[in-house]
Amino acid sequence: MKIGLIGAGRIGRLHGELISYNIPEAEIKTVAEINADNVKEWAGQLRISNLTTRYTDILDDAEIKAVLICSSTDTHARLITEAAAAGKHIFCEKPIDFDIERIQRALDAVKAAGVKLQIGFNRRFDHNFRKVRDIVAGGKIGDVHIVKITSRDPAPPPKEYIKVSGGIFLDMTIHDFDMARYLSISEVEEVYAQGAVLVDPVIGELGDIDTAVITLKFKNGALGVIDNSRQAVYGYDQRAEVFGSKGCVAVKNDFPNSAKLSTAEGVSSEKPHYFFLERYKDSYIEELKAFVDAVKNDKEPPVTGNDGLQPVLIGIAAMKSLKEKRPVKLRETS
Amino acid sequence: MKIGLIGAGRIGRLHGELISYNIPEAEIKTVAEINADNVKEWAGQLRISNLTTRYTDILDDAEIKAVLICSSTDTHARLITEAAAAGKHIFCEKPIDFDIERIQRALDAVKAAGVKLQIGFNRRFDHNFRKVRDIVAGGKIGDVHIVKITSRDPAPPPKEYIKVSGGIFLDMTIHDFDMARYLSISEVEEVYAQGAVLVDPVIGELGDIDTAVITLKFKNGALGVIDNSRQAVYGYDQRAEVFGSKGCVAVKNDFPNSAKLSTAEGVSSEKPHYFFLERYKDSYIEELKAFVDAVKNDKEPPVTGNDGLQPVLIGIAAMKSLKEKRPVKLRETS
Amino acid sequence: MKIGLIGAGRIGRLHGELISYNIPEAEIKTVAEINADNVKEWAGQLRISNLTTRYTDILDDAEIKAVLICSSTDTHARLITEAAAAGKHIFCEKPIDFDIERIQRALDAVKAAGVKLQIGFNRRFDHNFRKVRDIVAGGKIGDVHIVKITSRDPAPPPKEYIKVSGGIFLDMTIHDFDMARYLSISEVEEVYAQGAVLVDPVIGELGDIDTAVITLKFKNGALGVIDNSRQAVYGYDQRAEVFGSKGCVAVKNDFPNSAKLSTAEGVSSEKPHYFFLERYKDSYIEELKAFVDAVKNDKEPPVTGNDGLQPVLIGIAAMKSLKEKRPVKLRETS
Amino acid sequence: MKIGLIGAGRIGRLHGELISYNIPEAEIKTVAEINADNVKEWAGQLRISNLTTRYTDILDDAEIKAVLICSSTDTHARLITEAAAAGKHIFCEKPIDFDIERIQRALDAVKAAGVKLQIGFNRRFDHNFRKVRDIVAGGKIGDVHIVKITSRDPAPPPKEYIKVSGGIFLDMTIHDFDMARYLSISEVEEVYAQGAVLVDPVIGELGDIDTAVITLKFKNGALGVIDNSRQAVYGYDQRAEVFGSKGCVAVKNDFPNSAKLSTAEGVSSEKPHYFFLERYKDSYIEELKAFVDAVKNDKEPPVTGNDGLQPVLIGIAAMKSLKEKRPVKLRETS
Repeated sequence: MKIGLIGAGRIGRLHGELISYNIPEAEIKTVAEINADNVKEWAGQLRISNLTTRYTDILDDAEIKAVLICSSTDTHARLITEAAAAGKHIFCEKPIDFDIERIQRALDAVKAAGVKLQIGFNRRFDHNFRKVRDIVAGGKIGDVHIVKITSRDPAPPPKEYIKVSGGIFLDMTIHDFDMARYLSISEVEEVYAQGAVLVDPVIGELGDIDTAVITLKFKNGALGVIDNSRQAVYGYDQRAEVFGSKGCVAVKNDFPNSAKLSTAEGVSSEKPHYFFLERYKDSYIEELKAFVDAVKNDKEPPVTGNDGLQPVLIGIAAMKSLKEKRPVKLRETS
Repeated sequence: MKIGLIGAGRIGRLHGELISYNIPEAEIKTVAEINADNVKEWAGQLRISNLTTRYTDILDDAEIKAVLICSSTDTHARLITEAAAAGKHIFCEKPIDFDIERIQRALDAVKAAGVKLQIGFNRRFDHNFRKVRDIVAGGKIGDVHIVKITSRDPAPPPKEYIKVSGGIFLDMTIHDFDMARYLSISEVEEVYAQGAVLVDPVIGELGDIDTAVITLKFKNGALGVIDNSRQAVYGYDQRAEVFGSKGCVAVKNDFPNSAKLSTAEGVSSEKPHYFFLERYKDSYIEELKAFVDAVKNDKEPPVTGNDGLQPVLIGIAAMKSLKEKRPVKLRETS
Repeated sequence: MKIGLIGAGRIGRLHGELISYNIPEAEIKTVAEINADNVKEWAGQLRISNLTTRYTDILDDAEIKAVLICSSTDTHARLITEAAAAGKHIFCEKPIDFDIERIQRALDAVKAAGVKLQIGFNRRFDHNFRKVRDIVAGGKIGDVHIVKITSRDPAPPPKEYIKVSGGIFLDMTIHDFDMARYLSISEVEEVYAQGAVLVDPVIGELGDIDTAVITLKFKNGALGVIDNSRQAVYGYDQRAEVFGSKGCVAVKNDFPNSAKLSTAEGVSSEKPHYFFLERYKDSYIEELKAFVDAVKNDKEPPVTGNDGLQPVLIGIAAMKSLKEKRPVKLRETS
Repeated sequence: MKIGLIGAGRIGRLHGELISYNIPEAEIKTVAEINADNVKEWAGQLRISNLTTRYTDILDDAEIKAVLICSSTDTHARLITEAAAAGKHIFCEKPIDFDIERIQRALDAVKAAGVKLQIGFNRRFDHNFRKVRDIVAGGKIGDVHIVKITSRDPAPPPKEYIKVSGGIFLDMTIHDFDMARYLSISEVEEVYAQGAVLVDPVIGELGDIDTAVITLKFKNGALGVIDNSRQAVYGYDQRAEVFGSKGCVAVKNDFPNSAKLSTAEGVSSEKPHYFFLERYKDSYIEELKAFVDAVKNDKEPPVTGNDGLQPVLIGIAAMKSLKEKRPVKLRETS
């Protein structure tokens, strides 16, 4: 199965490598990247045949069955629409867009074309979070009462990135909004967001926040809470817990090793994995395998267009909540 | 040092036993209990000399230096005032009262009499929470950014108890509000409370909730979140975490033993301690030791009248928030 | 129930306090201690009526039903014999003696007198080890295949103590030999001991070792291993594991609290409890409760005379093995 | 860098896949396998050009720089000798041979040819064990006093395999003997082995054992113990601990995920990884990367010929010890 990769920035190159090294039944035939020179050497190492600056070379290639859209967020919705029109199956990085109407139009195009669309919420494929979901889905904790998600980055992104990020809720918390839906197996109905600038005043000057506690109400009656920080000095902090009528399931961070050193000073061990590349590497492989499997075997992709839409709706509600200092219902935002 | 015990219900008897068995330098001289017959045998086992139905027998006894007020909440404020007037040092169970003005008058009486007053927030003396506080106070996690408290009871109290409990926030969460202040070393400024009836509809019929997620804003800028349930089927769930600019400190539950059994079915271990008597036994001893020490050595008690007042203020704000579905500032309630 | 305490050194005073504070149905009536002056203040605090230098004052007192023998090891066998003859029930600290014949004669005297004898192997009453035993006894790990015990002290005892200790196997490992029998629910058949002087050369000069790995063969076919050190700089290291045909059960150390601090430097937590007083306090209470219960309710004590004999047999075999550099069967030593 | 793979059984195919998918700078040019038909499809999937039944096709190919010897143990020594004579660098699976003289001759041939030889002790590249070694090497636990290794397989191998395995010590414990040297950073001087047939009587009928506790004396004075079982029903149990004058470092098993489920029945989580393919996958990649790196950059391979020889010496001493029921010094076996 031939695949076209649109956008070979950090995440695009990651996907390219993971497919080349880990998914024998798929092959990156063409990479479209505006700054093609920057990735020439990289593409050579992966023995990728074609490198172009025009993504249309991919859309026009009848041999290419699917595309990975890894370009900047502002191009996602348009590329989805065009790729769908060209009959390509689509894997698109999150978020689809910051604008609900543009997302909706893209999803309509996908539906009209009858192609498959999978959104890049990789954490659904993580060994820990998937297990939590399985336990919840299996009824082992009964009805869901409380969902708790901790999600903290090791360090804030550069100023330039923050400017175009869409804000912490659409850039970072969006993964947690997805997790909230995934782990509760329910839809979010209402959001109340608290935010603060505690890590770096520059982030505040850019109109964003760096610390947040967001509470959720789910349609099934459950309550939820997400806490975020742009800077956990001890590394990437990614935990979750679901509490219900019959029990509670929780997952911890992953660590580079389990060595525990006991000395006269105390007991010490390693910090969690530093960031998402280390922590979620396997989940990126798994999501791509699932996409290839969905295309090859004509299955529903495990992360649908609606799964791409909902977290954006929650994020927009969270922004509104933060601004208006009150709980906001999702239906107010759509 | 002779002590008078007013009220010999569950918590009163617990305090009586702990003093008799664990604090050689103090002695319960007199117990005042309306249903004296019920506790005659118990008092005999502890070799307590005097059992009376009139608490004034204690207040009038010049040999008695301090009183433990363990009667029902509605009597606390009045007994504090009378005991203060009688020149007794006072240990009073939480909460002081549900009414801010009554609390304030009692605290004024204490101040006027120059006696010591310690409020029964025993969790401050717990080995785990005290260690978290020490680490935060020692600057090891830097500035506090996020405080997280999980507090879930193993089973809801009887219907009759819920009726007079003052509601979950003043009955159960009040301990967590105290912990929030204790662990953040800051005052709470604003509260937003979400609540639900997910455990037992009867609790809802009584006008209360059984599941809650409460978010806090602290004066020092930090954010906080408390999650409560009246029923964690696996036992008493008492955890906390403080995250800051230089790190994060977290404490887990305590368990009856550390045995881990690995079999073909999986790995299993014991549930946490069932409830507060098992979990917090040592903290009850420690708080009484601290009280006896404060009286004997003329020190400031480690849990002051204001420490008794603040959680009630937060609880009332939480009730208002739940009712009005908006964040409520503490200054609105006082 | 009146009790006489013979020997008020460290362990004697500990037992005295635990009975006074924790076991209301028993009372230390008389303490016999050669250096009575040293313990006058201590006995006063516990409100113990009689302090004598003659243990016969205890044996002659018809009101005293039981004795706690906490004097030096070389007096145990003789005191057991005399106490039995006086019709007293006996709790005796471990080891009974270093000489098998003397132990046997003492046990014979106990049997002839029909009194109860309990040996002070307190670890059998520890929450962790008792749970391991329960799991093994309950068949949850099937047939026992391998028993592993780690037992390391925080620091070596003083030179003077080591001289009279009987050697590491009879002083320290004797507890582990007892645990090996208790956890495997089988008898030891053969011992092979490796030893080294790695902590302090002075220990070697005194003819003892400070580091040991002892392997065991049990009558039920299982294998075992104990590792000892006189100095674990991080505190008292007390762990055990039993592996069998259906699974494995393991217990960890106990810690003063569960606080885990994550910073840029790593994750750290507290050392285990420092030594046996902190680690095993509750087990000392439980063993005394069990003794009082056995006497009051005419039950078989949970640690019998044979339970006192066997570990000495194993210890002597271990000494022989170390000296002769070969595995030694227990029947060679008796 | 072109590589020839000799022997495409389970471990040979594993190495082939790991090189193809994970080490871009190396390529399996030719596979030599007696039963070539069995692996035709497999080789096709990996796009390996040449499949042959004659390993000499590899040795004669000037383009091939290195060989992976993954054939049966009885061919290792001869193939090493021939490959060395052909000027190929060599990665050889453990054990080199069961016969010390044959091993020595093979190592001599390697030395004479000046080629590189790496032995397949993959656990040295495991994230956990490598960290223990780093901590020991870094002096963080001071002088090594006690080394403890637990190594238990999930299920015994087939009868046919056991017959030709060389016995548990040379087949299974050999990895632990390597770990003992690696983690202690010392050589083994003496071995005492206890063994039993507790898992399956058939293993005993074949003259082997299935359960073992082996104690070691190291040249640096440290003591060691390894415990083995052919059947841990809860999965692959791979732990180690090194205790020293300044502290102790321990590593636990790895688990498929960290999910912990708390219910009314207790707390449960997943079993460790099932077996070595899951547990040690990354270590196999790392050892091959290290080999390719050593060849490409003319470095000393991290697991030398002597590292292949020593564990066999220890294994033979262990067999002698088990037979003669006494501790055996390594110098007795060589």
